[in-house]
Amino acid sequence: MIDQLYKSVEQNGVVCLGLDTKLDYLPAHLLQKYTTVEEQLFQFNRAIIEATKDVVACYKVQIAYYEAYGLAGLRAYQRTLQYLKRVQAITIADIKRGDIADTAAQYAKAHFSGDFESDFVTLNPYMGYDTLGPFLPYLKQGNKGVFVLVRTSNEGAKDIQDQDVANKKLYQVVGEGLEHLGTSYLGQCGYSAIGAVIGCTNTEEAVKIRKMLDKTFFLIPGYGTQGGTAHDVASLLKNGNGGVVNASRSILLHYQKFSDGANRFDELAYLAATAMRSEIEGAIHDDAI
Amino acid sequence: MIDQLYKSVEQNGVVCLGLDTKLDYLPAHLLQKYTTVEEQLFQFNRAIIEATKDVVACYKVQIAYYEAYGLAGLRAYQRTLQYLKRVQAITIADIKRGDIADTAAQYAKAHFSGDFESDFVTLNPYMGYDTLGPFLPYLKQGNKGVFVLVRTSNEGAKDIQDQDVANKKLYQVVGEGLEHLGTSYLGQCGYSAIGAVIGCTNTEEAVKIRKMLDKTFFLIPGYGTQGGTAHDVASLLKNGNGGVVNASRSILLHYQKFSDGANRFDELAYLAATAMRSEIEGAIHDDAI
Repeated sequence: MIDQLYKSVEQNGVVCLGLDTKLDYLPAHLLQKYTTVEEQLFQFNRAIIEATKDVVACYKVQIAYYEAYGLAGLRAYQRTLQYLKRVQAITIADIKRGDIADTAAQYAKAHFSGDFESDFVTLNPYMGYDTLGPFLPYLKQGNKGVFVLVRTSNEGAKDIQDQDVANKKLYQVVGEGLEHLGTSYLGQCGYSAIGAVIGCTNTEEAVKIRKMLDKTFFLIPGYGTQGGTAHDVASLLKNGNGGVVNASRSILLHYQKFSDGANRFDELAYLAATAMRSEIEGAIHDDAI
Repeated sequence: MIDQLYKSVEQNGVVCLGLDTKLDYLPAHLLQKYTTVEEQLFQFNRAIIEATKDVVACYKVQIAYYEAYGLAGLRAYQRTLQYLKRVQAITIADIKRGDIADTAAQYAKAHFSGDFESDFVTLNPYMGYDTLGPFLPYLKQGNKGVFVLVRTSNEGAKDIQDQDVANKKLYQVVGEGLEHLGTSYLGQCGYSAIGAVIGCTNTEEAVKIRKMLDKTFFLIPGYGTQGGTAHDVASLLKNGNGGVVNASRSILLHYQKFSDGANRFDELAYLAATAMRSEIEGAIHDDAI
């Protein structure tokens, strides 16, 4: 699956579109046309997916937004994943689960098969690398992948990830541990099926992290609304690949910048995704010169 | 809510019954009687709850087991929480979520209101203390509480939690950070609404942790099937309170030890919960002498 993601980046660019969908985000006409939460969330996603599927590498579906609407939200979540599969898009379920033993096995079953099946999931490593255990057979046999939280760009990253551990930051220890684990799960593209979530912080750190985790594919949040620049993310990539850059609101809500935007929210999402792709490709090109 | 949990421990003892329910756990006659996964999981839980509600402090519902059955499983999860509320039992949703900003707010909404409302949730601190942010208003106003992962007893705990950070273990830094945060959320019982998940490891460490986190209520996994002894957990308590001790399979599957157990699985769960309660109370009594 990591090879398919790599190929998708080659073809469609590095944008990962985050479907962090809330009812507040929907144009009024959609809220009127559809009467259930399930239908409203799903139909918005469907239109966005149809408009953007040729200009994004993959879709990240943030399950928290759907859980917040209870069972109706999770029905929309399931239908969104199903629809993405139908159009052959690559999916990252942003679930950030992290548990051990049989509980971790249940999460793997939940998100790598059945109603909520996706291609990749995000995981939280706090309990240790054995949190990954039950997911690994799926990586070998099931054409799946994971992205493990390593370095995030929020204020609180200093509390745990930035703690000093034997001349290193804790996140470096975690990143190296995962890079090592990943050597058993290398794809033909040279990256392993054990990816890392690496936020945009600053260019200097980005260069260091990219060098340190040579075979690790990155899921990069923090672009746009959270402050990361195109040059920061370009430094986390390698020849314009080796990572996908997530954006959600800046694409989904681009239509709100136009007085007549609501009726063409999907087309405007396409334009925002294309602009982001070009911006990052421009920065990659600049850096290469 | 922490005061209600404290009072419940006084009245019913320290057992927290983990409803980590799988279809494999169900007696054959239940699987025959009910035809849908939703009904099978829920009816097993309902019978167990009815039988045990006077001898346990609270119930911990591990959402992974329900997610594994997709939407049907989550309907059983919702009905289980609803039923627990109806019988006025205290609930801990073991969700181990950990995210930031608006995503964390969506998780708080998802699990402190609506279909999946519970009294307590478990959280993962890897992204930093700002993962707690959106949950805190519910602690103040909504009579809710959280248990944050601090020290678990699995093999992988060494990978991150046990890393040496400035003469301390990382989990100590995290525990102290939470104890400090908790001072703004103290209940009348002397414990804060920000609890910690502390696994059973050994008695010496338990004594140290209990002293270090004086105002923190503990959710203690690892008893019985995972190897913790009654004396280990007694050391994590204070005058027999200040924590609840989780057990799941040893209670839910106690019936499998008897050739005629299947028809009285609920009564045998009651007996197992009572025996566990007595065992821990015995150890507390011994230690007090």
